[in-house]
Amino acid sequence: VERPVSRPPHPDGRVRAAAVALFAVKGFHGTGIRELADAAGLSSATLYHYIGTKEDLLVDIMQTSLDRLLTAAGQVLTESPSPVAAMNGLVQTHVVAHALRQAETVVVDTELRALSPERRRPIVALRDEYEDLWESVIEKGQASGSFQVPDASVARLALLQMCSGVANWYASGGRHTLAEIAEMHARLCLAMLGAGPEPGLPAAGHYIRLVAGVWGDDTTPA
Amino acid sequence: VERPVSRPPHPDGRVRAAAVALFAVKGFHGTGIRELADAAGLSSATLYHYIGTKEDLLVDIMQTSLDRLLTAAGQVLTESPSPVAAMNGLVQTHVVAHALRQAETVVVDTELRALSPERRRPIVALRDEYEDLWESVIEKGQASGSFQVPDASVARLALLQMCSGVANWYASGGRHTLAEIAEMHARLCLAMLGAGPEPGLPAAGHYIRLVAGVWGDDTTPA
Repeated sequence: VERPVSRPPHPDGRVRAAAVALFAVKGFHGTGIRELADAAGLSSATLYHYIGTKEDLLVDIMQTSLDRLLTAAGQVLTESPSPVAAMNGLVQTHVVAHALRQAETVVVDTELRALSPERRRPIVALRDEYEDLWESVIEKGQASGSFQVPDASVARLALLQMCSGVANWYASGGRHTLAEIAEMHARLCLAMLGAGPEPGLPAAGHYIRLVAGVWGDDTTPA
Repeated sequence: VERPVSRPPHPDGRVRAAAVALFAVKGFHGTGIRELADAAGLSSATLYHYIGTKEDLLVDIMQTSLDRLLTAAGQVLTESPSPVAAMNGLVQTHVVAHALRQAETVVVDTELRALSPERRRPIVALRDEYEDLWESVIEKGQASGSFQVPDASVARLALLQMCSGVANWYASGGRHTLAEIAEMHARLCLAMLGAGPEPGLPAAGHYIRLVAGVWGDDTTPA
């Protein structure tokens, strides 16, 4: 099947939002292309013209989400003077993104299985690049004596599962504000690494603004 | 639709194993009843006779899994003399179960969304009962001064996401043995709660045997 040359590099926001919502609730395989078109108010043919296949759409959602996480993490690392500060920022940024972009991050975290091996490879490479940033911060903290953990790689997996898990349970308007949840996670993660908080670490408001800056226009909770 | 009176309370193991494998890879909505019957070597009609609907099958898988986690947690609590010992046991048991029963626990953790509200309610109640056991151990540790956490409920969510996450990344034959992964998670969780390990806590072998005992015949990794 030939793709139209004029296809824009990123699908229309309405289609993307509909796809994120449907994939998160029904799963990639459980969402029909027709249903997707209906939810976006388009015909299946128009959808195909703008987006390509359903897999193209999933790849675009995942790539955009991981690019944003990488951009946000890069900003955190640039501004952080120590492994403890870097970890405080990585955790809070990740938690805020997973709470505000709940459906998007759940799709990224659960639907890798749906991609064909060729499409999965570059997405896994982006995910690995992001996770390697976390692991290098843990290793720097081990080297400087700030962190005491038996194994940097297992600690990185444990931290990321814990922080990504916020997307599974966060509800806005719950008992705690988003800022409280982000700060508690930073405190728990630093304790897990055997480090106390340093004086003068930025509070959650800073990272909520950082996430809003990276996610740009696309800031409505989803 | 009337269910046959002779339908056994639990579906045939072959169907259950096929369903766990398919639901984990393709999602509940992405798995057809025909495909399920084929994978189990049955006709759709025979499958229906033994199992009922696809939703009945999902409910059975979830209920069995949560019953086992509750049984294992009950044994851990009975034998543990302190909150630190109880948390060491809960974490190791949960990690071992999520590593050995990877597909089953992923289905339980991701496909609640697929259940109708009436079928979801008793499953959520079982899950809440299990999570309450964890939270009550955290609260006992706070009361006795063993644990220092800002909020027992957020700590419980963070611990469970981290330990359930093992099902997302564990690969047998990886760099660490299952026993090492279980023990490292116990150590990381206790550090997160502000507690060091106590002398004389059971090592992972004890909890691997406990899980094997509860899961009974159904011990092949899935």
